[in-house]
Amino acid sequence: MIIENGSIVSPKGFRASGVACGIKKTSAPDVALIVSEVPATCAATFTRNLVKGHSLQMSMRHIEGGLAKAFLINSGNANACVGPQGDRDAAAAAQRLATRLDCPVEQILFNSTGVIGIPLPIDKLLEGIDRAAASLSGDEAAGHAAEAAIMTTDTIPKEVTVSFVKDGQTVTVSGMAKGSGMIHPDMATMIGVLTTDCAVDAAVLQDTLRKAIASTFNRVTIDGDTSVCDMVAVLANGQAGNHRITTPDPDLMEAFYTVCEALSRMIAKDGEGATKLIEVKVLHARSPEDAYRIALSVAKSPLVKTMIFGEDANWGRILTAVGYAGANFDPAKCDIRIGGLEMCHNGAAVAFDEEVAKTMLAGDEIPIEIDLNEGTDWDRFWTCDFTYDYVKINGSYRT
Amino acid sequence: MIIENGSIVSPKGFRASGVACGIKKTSAPDVALIVSEVPATCAATFTRNLVKGHSLQMSMRHIEGGLAKAFLINSGNANACVGPQGDRDAAAAAQRLATRLDCPVEQILFNSTGVIGIPLPIDKLLEGIDRAAASLSGDEAAGHAAEAAIMTTDTIPKEVTVSFVKDGQTVTVSGMAKGSGMIHPDMATMIGVLTTDCAVDAAVLQDTLRKAIASTFNRVTIDGDTSVCDMVAVLANGQAGNHRITTPDPDLMEAFYTVCEALSRMIAKDGEGATKLIEVKVLHARSPEDAYRIALSVAKSPLVKTMIFGEDANWGRILTAVGYAGANFDPAKCDIRIGGLEMCHNGAAVAFDEEVAKTMLAGDEIPIEIDLNEGTDWDRFWTCDFTYDYVKINGSYRT
Repeated sequence: MIIENGSIVSPKGFRASGVACGIKKTSAPDVALIVSEVPATCAATFTRNLVKGHSLQMSMRHIEGGLAKAFLINSGNANACVGPQGDRDAAAAAQRLATRLDCPVEQILFNSTGVIGIPLPIDKLLEGIDRAAASLSGDEAAGHAAEAAIMTTDTIPKEVTVSFVKDGQTVTVSGMAKGSGMIHPDMATMIGVLTTDCAVDAAVLQDTLRKAIASTFNRVTIDGDTSVCDMVAVLANGQAGNHRITTPDPDLMEAFYTVCEALSRMIAKDGEGATKLIEVKVLHARSPEDAYRIALSVAKSPLVKTMIFGEDANWGRILTAVGYAGANFDPAKCDIRIGGLEMCHNGAAVAFDEEVAKTMLAGDEIPIEIDLNEGTDWDRFWTCDFTYDYVKINGSYRT
Repeated sequence: MIIENGSIVSPKGFRASGVACGIKKTSAPDVALIVSEVPATCAATFTRNLVKGHSLQMSMRHIEGGLAKAFLINSGNANACVGPQGDRDAAAAAQRLATRLDCPVEQILFNSTGVIGIPLPIDKLLEGIDRAAASLSGDEAAGHAAEAAIMTTDTIPKEVTVSFVKDGQTVTVSGMAKGSGMIHPDMATMIGVLTTDCAVDAAVLQDTLRKAIASTFNRVTIDGDTSVCDMVAVLANGQAGNHRITTPDPDLMEAFYTVCEALSRMIAKDGEGATKLIEVKVLHARSPEDAYRIALSVAKSPLVKTMIFGEDANWGRILTAVGYAGANFDPAKCDIRIGGLEMCHNGAAVAFDEEVAKTMLAGDEIPIEIDLNEGTDWDRFWTCDFTYDYVKINGSYRT
């Protein structure tokens, strides 16, 4: 598996663009378009929030057809909770792009991210779609432009490309994503796009995506909030020339996992206002569920997250979050290590070098290990610290 | 039911004190003592966190005797997660107080709140217990001193006194509590003490306490974190002279509820770094569980809480939190009102006066109503906004 520079157009047969149409108050790009030369096999996961954006709801219907020519994304407005107008706007945007690309409207996936409850400025968006379609390109820079156009409060772009050889042909998988607030597992957690030139059956594609997401995007939590627009979609256009994959494939699985894990870490590290990436690992749990609950509980705790921001080795808060996770474990067997430094052994404090702790906590990636010393199961979550800037960003998002 | 000025010693036959013994780095008071002249019938609820402080664990054993002469509380150190030394220190503190008060050690309740994982400075505490016992008084000011000595990051004292007439006798119920971080329901959520001179059976006392807490302290969330030292205890010494209550009593229930509700609102309003009290009310749900889940989900959402801090009428975040609550409801029937102002009707935006919203959001108590328009069940949570100061307080708690 080779990790390389690239962008969402690195797999063969994809073009992309990113333009500004004025949905965002700043003049930042807000319309992203990714197009496959031939209709691609597609798969996707969607938010489990009962409230769903109008654009996303349309995509849930379109995905049932199994083929997608393009994925259109606007940022700056979520097209959510605006009533029937939201459905009409989603349909109008998809129809306009289908006309420009000369494909059935059902082959258009569309999603919107941004503020909720305000109708889309549809005229601006339609004009933006025209320009995005006219400026499609297979150059690497076009992929970067598409990524830039889906960013909201993200501070860094999130793009990964890997490749492997299959049947003598190079198969490439690329991914891009946006964070960076309202991030929480089990609901796809953000907007992510994967492209690949791999030839693969729809069922295998869906299964591979689902498995990759389960242990990557679904293990990121920024604030416990889940958006109404979360969606990860993959377009596989078969242009690599490999024999069509019809059963689960370890190489494809590894490629998807590598892309999704790298994007997940980028999302956690770029969480709203974040200064540090936190990896919470739970070891030797009695069951997978116990490991999951404890990892999630610690990763969600505002007290743990502010403590890491403050670079304070207050491990008692970690044990506290372990204790209320609703998991089965024996507190008297629990060890806690931060940055490899043991601070709690068998549920009680152990002396540690405060200077070593200080230096370690000043780093920008903080691994927390909770060793339950009971069973064989483990799990892991990525999150970030909780900072003044999170409050600042979210105290004035709409206005 | 008359609400009056007073303190924890307002019921007949109680004395209290608060002294500084040097556990806190500041010279603030850190030892609180509440003593009943005669052994009191007692009841308590304890944290459901699997990790429990050593002082609290001892109190869980002592409460089984059903009688308490005194409740001792130290702040500044939680006496938690320090191994067998923590149990020995708890026993030594209780024994010292029992000797001073000439009562069985089993009649001493003891709890500790503060930093986790550092052994109690037991010599300082024992000396503090001696002075606290020597300075006991029935004056109202002595009750205030006890309250001051249990405060940690609290900025205002939390005390309530009510009285009613029973069998021609005035019965008084007083309560005091500390917040103000690591606050979450179903685990008693904080340290609270109730005293009453009511004559009442142990079973009725426990049942009345449990019911009052269910709809008050268990409906407060500050940050979703639950401490290892949470405990609410009531001492009922029977000195009012009423006939002993042996069956559930509406007056006593109302008194307990009034005291606990007032303390709950104070805790929410004084949440760490808080500038506003938020009341989240869910109306017309299909079931009590749906109402509970939705109220909790909205009250816990960092995005909702930062939005209220920023005085931003971004109601979409409220609907988003309703959507991921795991409750059954129809988004298309949901109305949302903030401060009485409808912003969402039938799941979609409605126009509202931004100026009116601005003025309303500038207030210090923000009611949020989520009307599901489906059933007859309702629930309510209190919380506070999420601010820069929460991050500041919790980024440097230990150091």
